[in-house]
Amino acid sequence: MDAAEFRKRGKEMVDYVADYLEKIEKRQVFPDVEPGYLRPLIADCAPQDPESFEDVFKDIEKIIMPGVTHWHSPYFFAYFPAASSFPALLADMLCGGIGCVGFSWAASPACTELETVMLDWLGKMVNLPEEFLAGKDGQGGGVIQGSASEATLIALLAARTKTIRQVQSEKPELTEAEIMGRLVAYASDQAHSSVERAALIGAVKIKSVPSDEAFSVCGSALKKVLDEDKAAGLIPFFFCATLGTTSCCSFDKLLELGPICNKENIWMHIDAAYAGSAFICPEFRHLLNGVEFADSFNFNPHKWLLVNFDCSAMWDTLAFEPQSSHTTPSWPQVKKRSDLIGAFKLEPLYLQHHHQESGLVTDYRHWQIPLGRRFRSLKLWFVLRMYGVKGLQEHIRKHIRLSHQFEHLVLQDERFEICAEVVLGLVCFRLKGSNELNEALLKSLNDAKKIHLVPCHLREKFVLRFAICSRTVESTHIKFAWQHISQLATDLLKTWGQNHHQQ
Amino acid sequence: MDAAEFRKRGKEMVDYVADYLEKIEKRQVFPDVEPGYLRPLIADCAPQDPESFEDVFKDIEKIIMPGVTHWHSPYFFAYFPAASSFPALLADMLCGGIGCVGFSWAASPACTELETVMLDWLGKMVNLPEEFLAGKDGQGGGVIQGSASEATLIALLAARTKTIRQVQSEKPELTEAEIMGRLVAYASDQAHSSVERAALIGAVKIKSVPSDEAFSVCGSALKKVLDEDKAAGLIPFFFCATLGTTSCCSFDKLLELGPICNKENIWMHIDAAYAGSAFICPEFRHLLNGVEFADSFNFNPHKWLLVNFDCSAMWDTLAFEPQSSHTTPSWPQVKKRSDLIGAFKLEPLYLQHHHQESGLVTDYRHWQIPLGRRFRSLKLWFVLRMYGVKGLQEHIRKHIRLSHQFEHLVLQDERFEICAEVVLGLVCFRLKGSNELNEALLKSLNDAKKIHLVPCHLREKFVLRFAICSRTVESTHIKFAWQHISQLATDLLKTWGQNHHQQ
Repeated sequence: MDAAEFRKRGKEMVDYVADYLEKIEKRQVFPDVEPGYLRPLIADCAPQDPESFEDVFKDIEKIIMPGVTHWHSPYFFAYFPAASSFPALLADMLCGGIGCVGFSWAASPACTELETVMLDWLGKMVNLPEEFLAGKDGQGGGVIQGSASEATLIALLAARTKTIRQVQSEKPELTEAEIMGRLVAYASDQAHSSVERAALIGAVKIKSVPSDEAFSVCGSALKKVLDEDKAAGLIPFFFCATLGTTSCCSFDKLLELGPICNKENIWMHIDAAYAGSAFICPEFRHLLNGVEFADSFNFNPHKWLLVNFDCSAMWDTLAFEPQSSHTTPSWPQVKKRSDLIGAFKLEPLYLQHHHQESGLVTDYRHWQIPLGRRFRSLKLWFVLRMYGVKGLQEHIRKHIRLSHQFEHLVLQDERFEICAEVVLGLVCFRLKGSNELNEALLKSLNDAKKIHLVPCHLREKFVLRFAICSRTVESTHIKFAWQHISQLATDLLKTWGQNHHQQ
Repeated sequence: MDAAEFRKRGKEMVDYVADYLEKIEKRQVFPDVEPGYLRPLIADCAPQDPESFEDVFKDIEKIIMPGVTHWHSPYFFAYFPAASSFPALLADMLCGGIGCVGFSWAASPACTELETVMLDWLGKMVNLPEEFLAGKDGQGGGVIQGSASEATLIALLAARTKTIRQVQSEKPELTEAEIMGRLVAYASDQAHSSVERAALIGAVKIKSVPSDEAFSVCGSALKKVLDEDKAAGLIPFFFCATLGTTSCCSFDKLLELGPICNKENIWMHIDAAYAGSAFICPEFRHLLNGVEFADSFNFNPHKWLLVNFDCSAMWDTLAFEPQSSHTTPSWPQVKKRSDLIGAFKLEPLYLQHHHQESGLVTDYRHWQIPLGRRFRSLKLWFVLRMYGVKGLQEHIRKHIRLSHQFEHLVLQDERFEICAEVVLGLVCFRLKGSNELNEALLKSLNDAKKIHLVPCHLREKFVLRFAICSRTVESTHIKFAWQHISQLATDLLKTWGQNHHQQ
């Protein structure tokens, strides 16, 4: 395919994507296919000779679309939102066209520099303390990770390195393995599974801190486990606070937890993957109070800020720490080095460039797990400018309004209960009654495939999660969803009364 | 921006990208900007009110392009290629439009199933042994990672978990921390820095195995370190073999190394990030002989197979291992579990779906570091079909032909030497003489900015790497590059003779 054909086909693809998103409401939100549906529809191996674009294009509707879960359908209420907007799609086209791999400043200076400035824009939008921002002197600042899981892992690894170095300087008789065996990380019993996973990868112990009746971790709960573990000779080193848990969007009490972590020399990372976007609205910013105690903070514009996946924003207050220079006198006397990047900085010659020791540039490869990176800040640049802060605030506020609309509908029906406070765009609800009853309700909902949602456990309860997801979801869709749920509940309860008389 | 405006702007963007790539040759390959160039060109914070597409669009040439290193210029010979093709760009547009997040089968069945089939296609193209493929029964098979760094890390973590379990079952008196303290990973002294980084992240020791005069690791070199380390009470558990090292594209001797790893119960991972794409040509497939001894294998179609970044293909022979069932009898008696995914499989309810224990589906989230994942297999599907195997072979062969053309030009000039065998698309060369002389040559090349390349160290020598990168590079560009290098060398040697008379 040459540039001339790309012009033609690219425009057809633009129309296809526009059609898809304009008419997505007419597609069944969850597919009918069974596991293994696709393989029989496709050749056993790649063709030897080129096929035409037309042949591939017509297979999109024939082979791909029947197996797609439509995340941007206004009837999709599962998981958390995956952001999507037209400006972000345009930026991704540009990103693909430029096709640079920005692992160092020199590999494409614009790729690094736009990212630094965009993370400052975003940091200011959620009113992060000054020390999280890069500012004009090029120190500190944020980075785009692929996902919150990676951000948590990076923070945990940085904390691990920092603690091992500290302990070794105080007790040189301990080996690294001995120290590792005593390190403990902590997170809420409501924290995302990726926190436990980060600890497994980092080969450190992790303990759940019990959350309170509102599913929040408070200071006394953390203090209790810390005291026990320190008495047992363990070394607490990392606490991952969650703002907006995945199960029910609860908030750990930063203002209590932060001072404890600071006093005990524990790295506090804040995972606000979903909720973070809401902090651009002044009326929700108070939920982030206490961030000033944190060492690192992360949220996902690719969830709720209309920037297509992947774009997970992470900031680190300790990003640059002075360390004495040991090399060429022509460099500045104080070299800036980060706790975060210090954890695994390696410098083979083929990745070096003559600006890297100037203290003036950022080489983002030291801040992340992969080496390569796409020009993802273009998406932020397009979205922040073409929506403006006000446009994005409107989007957040609409979603929160709709979640309260749904909450209100649930509360008006005596058969149902709300299971956790509705703070942002997630409603946890269930039929009053057994877990089996609620499992049956979810099954009938997902069998009907008119709307799509997923469950969670809150303590011993099986709960339905209704997350406002689509950019285009409106009040009418919420009403439809509720009428549908309500009708299926009525149908279910009729049968349930007969079949489960004893329950 | 609504769908109607997206149709208009999307088409403008298609033309912009087509223009950019068609005329890329006219742009200076490496930018003139200094660190910090971008911030003064951009507002301090995001606008409150929306800006127009026109305003953003005109800033692309004004703000972004002056700071872009043009990876797809035919004058770009740095690093390794970053793949780019029109079919891949089209597929990425579709991927963005669908915008699903495929962390589990249910999150979008097509996203998982196409990936499994595409990795089979690709595996067959490089003639991988049967046990690496998923096949019709849905066991084993490949996965798309973001980068080779992630693939190496995943393999190392899986090997770590497997070894710890084995050692614990044999010596239950050892704690996990004690075992961890004795684990050792190995890689060539020529291996990519990401291997050392994976060991740092995984908190295990890593040792360099000395390569021979051809920069390859041979069996006896590995055997020697293994014997020493075992005698010292250490536990060798992981060897990362490299096919196509970053510095000089050398190849570790799999046929010698594989049997040693198998005998010693060491996980052998093969990193063929760059070279792997060449194995689709029968005449280069012999370089992969010995893969049958490996536990996992990885290469990057996003380097050399015309699939835009990111798309790193990884296969695992042990992907599915029988393990006895301990639960519901309605499930198959033998549950398939992977060494790889077993390393960090966690199952919160909100990620579960009713097919996941059937043994019929793959939940790729267990195979990787991030939770979320884009629909990247679309890129493979578009590229493999629209180029066909023959078209891709042509692309590989053209690059290798051009590298030999360059090698030939170097060899004809007595002032220069070739520093490593030219096997694929990379030529390592230098002026006969001091490292300082070659550093000066590189500096004059990169100051002139007519072509762009990066250096490497081979043992004590400073060497220039000339990598064939662009999809559109032709013989004339190679000739131009050589004439330019040759001229700068002439200029340099004139002055050098006067200023460095004693050297």
